[in-house]
Amino acid sequence: MPDHSNRDGPRPSLRVRRVNLDTGRENVVVLSRRSSALRPDIFRGFSRVELQHGSKAQLATLLITDDDALVGPDEIGLSDPAFRRFAEPAGSLVTVSPAASPQSLDAVRRKIQGATFEPDEIEAIIRDLTHYRYSDMEIAAFLISSASFMTSRELLALVHAMAVAGTQLKWPSEIVVDKHCIGGIPGNRTSMIVVPIVAAHGLTIPKTSSRAITSPAGTADTMEVLARVDVSVEEMKEVVAACRGCLVWGGHVNLSPADDILISVERPLCLDTREQMVASIISKKIAAGSSHLLIDLPVGPTAKLANANEAMRLRKLFEFVGDQFGIAVEVITTDGRQPIGNGIGPVLEAADVMSVLSNEPGAPADLREKSLRLAAHLLEYDPQLRGGTGYARARELLDSGAALQKMQGIIDAQGPSTCRSDVGKLTYDVRAARDGTISEIDCLQLNRLARTAGAPIDKGAGIKLFCKIGDRVESGQPLYRIHAYDQSELDLVVSAATRDSGYVINARQPLPAEPTS
Amino acid sequence: MPDHSNRDGPRPSLRVRRVNLDTGRENVVVLSRRSSALRPDIFRGFSRVELQHGSKAQLATLLITDDDALVGPDEIGLSDPAFRRFAEPAGSLVTVSPAASPQSLDAVRRKIQGATFEPDEIEAIIRDLTHYRYSDMEIAAFLISSASFMTSRELLALVHAMAVAGTQLKWPSEIVVDKHCIGGIPGNRTSMIVVPIVAAHGLTIPKTSSRAITSPAGTADTMEVLARVDVSVEEMKEVVAACRGCLVWGGHVNLSPADDILISVERPLCLDTREQMVASIISKKIAAGSSHLLIDLPVGPTAKLANANEAMRLRKLFEFVGDQFGIAVEVITTDGRQPIGNGIGPVLEAADVMSVLSNEPGAPADLREKSLRLAAHLLEYDPQLRGGTGYARARELLDSGAALQKMQGIIDAQGPSTCRSDVGKLTYDVRAARDGTISEIDCLQLNRLARTAGAPIDKGAGIKLFCKIGDRVESGQPLYRIHAYDQSELDLVVSAATRDSGYVINARQPLPAEPTS
Repeated sequence: MPDHSNRDGPRPSLRVRRVNLDTGRENVVVLSRRSSALRPDIFRGFSRVELQHGSKAQLATLLITDDDALVGPDEIGLSDPAFRRFAEPAGSLVTVSPAASPQSLDAVRRKIQGATFEPDEIEAIIRDLTHYRYSDMEIAAFLISSASFMTSRELLALVHAMAVAGTQLKWPSEIVVDKHCIGGIPGNRTSMIVVPIVAAHGLTIPKTSSRAITSPAGTADTMEVLARVDVSVEEMKEVVAACRGCLVWGGHVNLSPADDILISVERPLCLDTREQMVASIISKKIAAGSSHLLIDLPVGPTAKLANANEAMRLRKLFEFVGDQFGIAVEVITTDGRQPIGNGIGPVLEAADVMSVLSNEPGAPADLREKSLRLAAHLLEYDPQLRGGTGYARARELLDSGAALQKMQGIIDAQGPSTCRSDVGKLTYDVRAARDGTISEIDCLQLNRLARTAGAPIDKGAGIKLFCKIGDRVESGQPLYRIHAYDQSELDLVVSAATRDSGYVINARQPLPAEPTS
Repeated sequence: MPDHSNRDGPRPSLRVRRVNLDTGRENVVVLSRRSSALRPDIFRGFSRVELQHGSKAQLATLLITDDDALVGPDEIGLSDPAFRRFAEPAGSLVTVSPAASPQSLDAVRRKIQGATFEPDEIEAIIRDLTHYRYSDMEIAAFLISSASFMTSRELLALVHAMAVAGTQLKWPSEIVVDKHCIGGIPGNRTSMIVVPIVAAHGLTIPKTSSRAITSPAGTADTMEVLARVDVSVEEMKEVVAACRGCLVWGGHVNLSPADDILISVERPLCLDTREQMVASIISKKIAAGSSHLLIDLPVGPTAKLANANEAMRLRKLFEFVGDQFGIAVEVITTDGRQPIGNGIGPVLEAADVMSVLSNEPGAPADLREKSLRLAAHLLEYDPQLRGGTGYARARELLDSGAALQKMQGIIDAQGPSTCRSDVGKLTYDVRAARDGTISEIDCLQLNRLARTAGAPIDKGAGIKLFCKIGDRVESGQPLYRIHAYDQSELDLVVSAATRDSGYVINARQPLPAEPTS
């Protein structure tokens, strides 16, 4: 039975000390087993404590130490995130009491038992989440309680609560367009081509992107090779005022902060439900002030969506939720059987993008075509544009160099990149093991290999592809080149690629033997 | 999508260092942000790592530090539980690789999506759990995925997997009896009276008990006031060989270790489902080698079961599972409206027990009666005993002093207690606020108050009750006395009891006013 009444009476004070431990998202504090003011053994039954300083309060998970050099009996050690969020200097006096779970967790318990959430319950949960009052375990409880079953009413309440929990951007233009891909396909940096095309046309497209969490590059990681992406809300508004578009990291803009927190638990648990995906994306777009949204759903055997039926169910859910919040949502399915473009990893992907924008002869045709197709959809949102001419207009803006010029403008407005942008000089070519035709490419495996090579931390690490599905190859011909900065990383990825290159090559079939009968 | 293929190739070695941090159940390791051999930023995407030394491997959750004094670039810091379990001396060289979730978690993900577990999947989950391969978050995922819905087949597979995951005791006697109460009622130390009665009769009753986790005393905490309880399997067997019965802590006996791990996550989340309760209890009893089991289900407004209907559903589940495993399970419901006995807290409860066994005139009648009733049921399992004479036989063994003598024998066999056993000298009497009749006692609130007073860590802290439901009291008359060792604990509990004493007193009703019409 839940118990919220453990905050009894006055508690003795402890001195704040910073403990140099990065505990990720979770607030963690360390207490001495011989604590002069507290009884860790008793606290241990609770495992969560509440720190108080004046009217400021913070929940944290408790660890115990016997080492006075770490935390003395009169001290309370705050790990990095707890220290940063509590924002009181070392030496401050705080009181510490045993803390029960946040009250909103009662609704999660009822949901686990089969109840549905009321909108105000979801609002309270999201509020507690964004104030770091939930432990990882409690976040997992919320996610899993909702993962098996969620009503439309619950989903809409979740989207709303997430959208209003952080920054909410407003724009002077009536039409604010955006695009979003659900991810999973290596390369596929269409946003960096679509945004300059659409902005060059004159529509407002204030694009915020994420950094890679488990993939070898996010759009923010790749754009960072060309320009600064780590901008504040005010800077972002200036860039959009000047250029109509931007390509920035969403981290400092604080759109739907609950989303980042939920993702930090979904990822290690590999939870990936349609409802949570829709809530994540639509809440961020509502907060970003988008009026028109194009969603890209890649479909393929190693993509997030394996077939057209799955894609249709997800499309309907996006459309339903978009309609409820007055966002014009359009969803298209795209070919997700293999990487888009030739590069995987920030520097290699940025090179692909710039070669398409520059109309270089060797620019990857698949990346160009997909970007034009997406831009065409967005341009059709312009009431001034004659229906059906979106694609032609997009191609015109790209071929004329207007998109490239717009990209240069955005890069100048965001400011110069400060990160290393050379391609990894340590290389290894992975070669075809037989003659034949490439029939499959495993997107998951290529993502893993590029990540093992060092991407996205090492901007120039990754993979450059030489051939795609349908290409004929001969035994020994290079399929792709691995790039790394670091020999030990290269060794690791070579050994992994040797076990599984990610490519399937169908040998030419020998003629069937003559029937012997 | 789950990814189990991150263990690529050889990894450079790091030197083991112990980090003085008690992280509870979870294995935690600390890595330097400037680690010479590893890339914490890259690892961070994974958050779990695998340590290897020869054929020994261990999964752990990763924290990062910038402090060389804590963990240097060539080192890996192991928190207390990880250091103890990995069991390699400081300075040993280990390799560390990014680790994905255990493979058995795939089944948990399918269960969340609506599938049911196969028996071999549950077996793999329990095996990984007991080898500390699950993070708290992953354990929460397993528990919650099962909390909403569990088939009979899943439940039986869970009970079996848990029962065989640790020690499995065997006894020379054919009939091995045991009793278990689902808890929640303060006082209620019937086991310490039932075991000596039943053992004095000659039945085998090797009782293992738990320590309190969130209550003010478990049977193991209370028995520890009288004797050593912290015994090995071998010692336990010697005690039972000598006395027919024992009253020991189950912690070192390692019966159903997965149960303790699951409970460590159920408690903070306040998850309490019938299926998990039944799996927990029956798996421990199978492992303990019990042939006949009596289960006590207290029913009352502040007990774990609120009404007879809930109790009946739980009873049927216990009977069903017991039958499947060939254990004769009998379930009785008892009065759970108020505490049993007068003491709450180890020393005060031990005093109640000894006064009943010694037939003292002031011994609590409710504790005596309930113990006799439970013992009667157990004695009826003896084929030699004439049906219906269990109660009379139990009373005979208690009244004659045979049970007391048996208890002395058990105490002698287990060895003397080494803990402090004086009642807390700091006291405060909580008094009736009005004249009237006691109509309700809140078991949850009394448990909280006794715990705030310091129980079970302070053995002599707790509450001594002076009156029970139905007693007439006058304003100012003491309802109960709080005992503590420590003034600050006493202050806390007094302030909590002043807000809510846990007692409801119905005032004498004034005569109704004359009708005025």
